[in-house]
Amino acid sequence: MKFELTILGSSSALPTSQRNLTAHVLNVYERFFLIDCGEGTQIQLRRNRIRFGKINHIFISHLHGDHIYGLFGLLSSFNLLDRTNDLHIYAHKPLKNGIDYIRKNFEGHLNYNIRFHPINPEEKELIYEDKRLEVYSFPLRHKIATSGFLFVEKPREPNIKKSYVQKYNISVKNIQHIKSGGDYKSPDGWLIPHAEITEPPYRQRSYAFCSDTGYYEAIVPVINNVDLLYHEATFQEEHREEAEKTLHSTARQAASIARQARAKKLIIGHFSARYKEIDNLLSEARAIFEDTIPAEDGLVYDIKPYRTERPDDY
Amino acid sequence: MKFELTILGSSSALPTSQRNLTAHVLNVYERFFLIDCGEGTQIQLRRNRIRFGKINHIFISHLHGDHIYGLFGLLSSFNLLDRTNDLHIYAHKPLKNGIDYIRKNFEGHLNYNIRFHPINPEEKELIYEDKRLEVYSFPLRHKIATSGFLFVEKPREPNIKKSYVQKYNISVKNIQHIKSGGDYKSPDGWLIPHAEITEPPYRQRSYAFCSDTGYYEAIVPVINNVDLLYHEATFQEEHREEAEKTLHSTARQAASIARQARAKKLIIGHFSARYKEIDNLLSEARAIFEDTIPAEDGLVYDIKPYRTERPDDY
Repeated sequence: MKFELTILGSSSALPTSQRNLTAHVLNVYERFFLIDCGEGTQIQLRRNRIRFGKINHIFISHLHGDHIYGLFGLLSSFNLLDRTNDLHIYAHKPLKNGIDYIRKNFEGHLNYNIRFHPINPEEKELIYEDKRLEVYSFPLRHKIATSGFLFVEKPREPNIKKSYVQKYNISVKNIQHIKSGGDYKSPDGWLIPHAEITEPPYRQRSYAFCSDTGYYEAIVPVINNVDLLYHEATFQEEHREEAEKTLHSTARQAASIARQARAKKLIIGHFSARYKEIDNLLSEARAIFEDTIPAEDGLVYDIKPYRTERPDDY
Repeated sequence: MKFELTILGSSSALPTSQRNLTAHVLNVYERFFLIDCGEGTQIQLRRNRIRFGKINHIFISHLHGDHIYGLFGLLSSFNLLDRTNDLHIYAHKPLKNGIDYIRKNFEGHLNYNIRFHPINPEEKELIYEDKRLEVYSFPLRHKIATSGFLFVEKPREPNIKKSYVQKYNISVKNIQHIKSGGDYKSPDGWLIPHAEITEPPYRQRSYAFCSDTGYYEAIVPVINNVDLLYHEATFQEEHREEAEKTLHSTARQAASIARQARAKKLIIGHFSARYKEIDNLLSEARAIFEDTIPAEDGLVYDIKPYRTERPDDY
């Protein structure tokens, strides 16, 4: 029942000796979704012991080099590792030609298929779905077409309390009836109400990836109530003018989005290499949104299953 | 007077958590020459504290992804770091179009010029020269056009012994005369022979880079007497058949080339990721050529200046 994020790279366009270029991996029930693929991603996957064969879906936010240059080598390595499974890539359309060009000129034949899914950069859209998960892309505000991604767990059925299952030896048919919202009806004809015999289901967990983007309130309703928000914070407030010019965000702006969206937790990252320490960025963000943590290469954040409603005044 | 090699990546096509993809840096009197540029090279440059601004010349052996995919990001990073100096790239011709394609589709304008120097894959040729150094490319034997590189220090003038300079207060004109091979002639008209007043000059140091290549004796005369030979050793003897099929070398073959070429020191590298430990490859090589060391990421090998002739029976 994992819903766990691993950060492989936390720098912005210039990598440092401590921070690689952008790449995240979301583990949803042991399916691994790769989000962006900056140079060095395959090496970071190795370091973090994430098996290449577990990755079947890659989501690319935008086509700047620091988010894609790890892709060419990763595709080759998949091949060298005898991959045969289809690989699905969700990205803006020009990447397809880029991949084709590189493959044709600098590589041999691939023994697996790449399924390319072009992203609509203008609208929120459902781009992936399986029995556990939905993934949406939505527009961000950057120099070129850029999309954020929202990963949302599907609603889960309520659990029947173990004590009742044992006590009443409930039939499979009855279990299905109860899980879909019904009451328990015994062979003798009496009822136990649904609310008594079940625990509330686990909540739908969610993760939103927002990078690269200038401050953009239009995303607030899209990511409303998200469990974990990753929002870029390339700059500190002091360099806000530069943030606006380059369509990046300050740490304060990232926190403001998290607050408005009532996120549960905020991770800031994509730090400019000019900041040797990111203490100031973190303080700035925490002043607005306390539950902020800084991205570090190798950071693992596990969103544990939870049943309770959030308090209204969260 | 440095002539110092730093190895940034020592794996073959698949990187591991310990070994990055191929890239070497040769520091010749504080000019830094980058040889190959596998994915992650810019991060390895950072880790090894090599300043990007010191690199003006990049030599690419061949156009397989594991030797070039670090180039696209490095070019961007140069730009972000406000480079204005020309960057010289020596590579087989199709790389130029590749760079142009990537720049056009995924990057903005560069604020510096790239000077592209196409390598002739068929012949040994002098491809670079300055007052300290000559660089030659020469054909290797691989699946696509591949060139090795030979870096040779230029001949140095003999040094006049300090004691004589002080004792006779030799004029600048006379110093030039002696350094170019003449005897010392005093104002009074008597002579001190050249051989007495000078120390023999430092020898021309040299480094040869041979990767990727199958076993290829044709390179022996080209790299004859080289101080330091890097020769790929992708496989151990046990997998010789695979080496021949893929046009790579075994450790034993690399050592055989070093021995025939009377190299002073051999570094083997480009190890297949299948070998968790490379002890066997090293033993194999040392059985043929004792002065063998294994490439490791971050290995620095300094070829110190030396004056003596090598013994004939070396």
